[in-house]
Amino acid sequence: MPILVMKFGGTSVATPDRIKRAAKRVGREVANGYDVIVIVSAMAGKTNELVGWVNETSPLYDAREYDAVVSSGENVTAGLMALTLQEMDVPARSWQGWQVPLKTTSAHGSARIEEIPPENILKKFGEGMKVAVVAGFQGISPEGRITTLGRGGSDTTAVAFAAAFGAERCDIYTDVDGVYTTDPRICDKARKLDRIAFEEMLELASLGAKVLQTRSVELAMRYGVRLRVLSSFEDNNEEAGTLVCAEEDIVESNVVAGVAYSRDEAKMTLISVADRPGIAAAIFGPLAEAGVNVDMIVQNISEDGRTDMTFSCPVDQVKRAEASMEKAKESGSINYHDLVADTGVSKVSVVGIGMRSHAGVAARMFQSLKDENINIKVITTSEIKISVLIDRKYMELAVQALHDAFELEKAS
Amino acid sequence: MPILVMKFGGTSVATPDRIKRAAKRVGREVANGYDVIVIVSAMAGKTNELVGWVNETSPLYDAREYDAVVSSGENVTAGLMALTLQEMDVPARSWQGWQVPLKTTSAHGSARIEEIPPENILKKFGEGMKVAVVAGFQGISPEGRITTLGRGGSDTTAVAFAAAFGAERCDIYTDVDGVYTTDPRICDKARKLDRIAFEEMLELASLGAKVLQTRSVELAMRYGVRLRVLSSFEDNNEEAGTLVCAEEDIVESNVVAGVAYSRDEAKMTLISVADRPGIAAAIFGPLAEAGVNVDMIVQNISEDGRTDMTFSCPVDQVKRAEASMEKAKESGSINYHDLVADTGVSKVSVVGIGMRSHAGVAARMFQSLKDENINIKVITTSEIKISVLIDRKYMELAVQALHDAFELEKAS
Repeated sequence: MPILVMKFGGTSVATPDRIKRAAKRVGREVANGYDVIVIVSAMAGKTNELVGWVNETSPLYDAREYDAVVSSGENVTAGLMALTLQEMDVPARSWQGWQVPLKTTSAHGSARIEEIPPENILKKFGEGMKVAVVAGFQGISPEGRITTLGRGGSDTTAVAFAAAFGAERCDIYTDVDGVYTTDPRICDKARKLDRIAFEEMLELASLGAKVLQTRSVELAMRYGVRLRVLSSFEDNNEEAGTLVCAEEDIVESNVVAGVAYSRDEAKMTLISVADRPGIAAAIFGPLAEAGVNVDMIVQNISEDGRTDMTFSCPVDQVKRAEASMEKAKESGSINYHDLVADTGVSKVSVVGIGMRSHAGVAARMFQSLKDENINIKVITTSEIKISVLIDRKYMELAVQALHDAFELEKAS
Repeated sequence: MPILVMKFGGTSVATPDRIKRAAKRVGREVANGYDVIVIVSAMAGKTNELVGWVNETSPLYDAREYDAVVSSGENVTAGLMALTLQEMDVPARSWQGWQVPLKTTSAHGSARIEEIPPENILKKFGEGMKVAVVAGFQGISPEGRITTLGRGGSDTTAVAFAAAFGAERCDIYTDVDGVYTTDPRICDKARKLDRIAFEEMLELASLGAKVLQTRSVELAMRYGVRLRVLSSFEDNNEEAGTLVCAEEDIVESNVVAGVAYSRDEAKMTLISVADRPGIAAAIFGPLAEAGVNVDMIVQNISEDGRTDMTFSCPVDQVKRAEASMEKAKESGSINYHDLVADTGVSKVSVVGIGMRSHAGVAARMFQSLKDENINIKVITTSEIKISVLIDRKYMELAVQALHDAFELEKAS
């Protein structure tokens, strides 16, 4: 039998009734001839309740105990889903991470999957079981302790199972009906994409389109898992949702696939830094240690052996960045005249694998922003992405203008 | 290091604050020089929430999935308790049933403990861990599935650990401060017992004194585990609570240890049953199959080859008993004239190991009831117990009168 992996997030299994709706989708795929592996999250709100108790108990908690507590939510859903399927006469049983076993590293709280031996579950499929319901987000360490995979870990679990079992597809059921050219709340012309390349999805995911966890997309790309994102609250036909797949599976596509944004960014400038070999390491080493997620970096032209160094980071990390730089200055490892923080900026990006073979995307992007009188503060580019920092008040306007400029409302 | 087992029930760990209070008690025993095994229940209300979801999902549930779901409550408490102890600088870690491993039979929902290999936990004690926090009520089957031990299973877990580890004592923390000569809500002269023999506790437990689960007392008796019941809401000194122990550890005792009662009993009489060999089996076999917990049985003198057969059972099982008898009559396996149910009776019992060596306890009991004009409907006796069925309206009066008659308000 071909194997299908189906993953249901917290809102899709928030109540016994919703679990029933999800189970009906699973039953339909069983009727279609699949052996199904279902990955479930905790019922919506449950993980937060458990995390709250842990934080109340121990602000600097032992991550091994955190994992033991927090993983319990998924176990509940897995059992309830198996019972629901049995009620529908679909042979099913639940598996907790350690029962599979889903083997991970010992990095509690953000463990990485090492191995998923398929034998135990395949044996049950061979005996007539049609659905293995697996508690997502969790595994077992080499020491036999329960681990969790970090935020979005259930997506990653699903993709890892699809890879380990050579599944035909991995369907991620969520509360949106697919991946859009941009955020429909900001741009009413936003259009659902039928297909998107792994690379594009990765850029969109890391830019703040919160449909899929970045790690799960990376894993899908590495193992060639066909990943479909679709809504658990709508009737889905064959063409529903968005298929995240290899570039060669996308026959035609727009040059630009989508416009992404990240609202709460800050632009930090170190003024008059001594420009010497190793200065970048002296600045960004301490920032990384302080847990500042530096995104864009721009170094100005040097004058008289001094330069300005500009970088961006999330607004809520500005204080941490400032403290880190002061400390580095005091220790003498760097020297600068001033550190200026502009906390009123946003990042807007256009993403598309078509950019590799099409010139002029940057020019069209900049012209479009100029037409709206939007000033660009920082630019960075990659092979398939161009990002700019602009004043936050222009963010929505910029997204709409770029969506229009690249005619994203039209399918290719 | 000597080992101590401490068990905390659901109300004792209902909130992070209460877990902290329980942890302080554990910390004190560690300071006293013990390695401690803590057995925890689920936070009060959590198990009922989980059971509710299972019942909503699947009224005739797969007990294996029921166990997987319902056991998750204890896992949460175990992790939180370990974290709380760590916050107090007490080296601790949590253990789920399968991690110990606590090996059970495959009788899901009411599994029996088969073995608790102590090696894993002893190894950790050897490495400096002071407290092993174990999720109560759960184990692992030979098939590798999670099992639960049934109601009161956490008491049983605690006693089994005390036996497996040769613990010095097993302290059961609960919401009462010990075992009383009778229910203080009914008799204000009720006195807390400092010590009680296993056999007495067994009779009291099965008679409805809900302090300890019967199975846990049986297990403690078999393995000679010294069991102490005490309050988790009061300061306890060395002599706090009630020690349940072997008869020989009780130096002096009253002839009668306590007066127990069971309020909602029914007295059923099969009138004019053919008195032939095997008639008892023909009656009580079907009743047992129907799930009727028959308690007292009295057979009247036979006359003309026919007799009356009287038995008692809980009031809420009367309908089941009636249906079962009708069915047996229809099938021709028994024959009777009528089945009369008196649903207005209660059972009152006096219990004490001293009865073995003291005559006259029954006489004193019957005289005392007669003095209050209470009519006795059925009597049964065992070596250390005399039980009577009486009209329910006299129950409290009977308990008080017997408490007075045996001078239970006075310590021996």
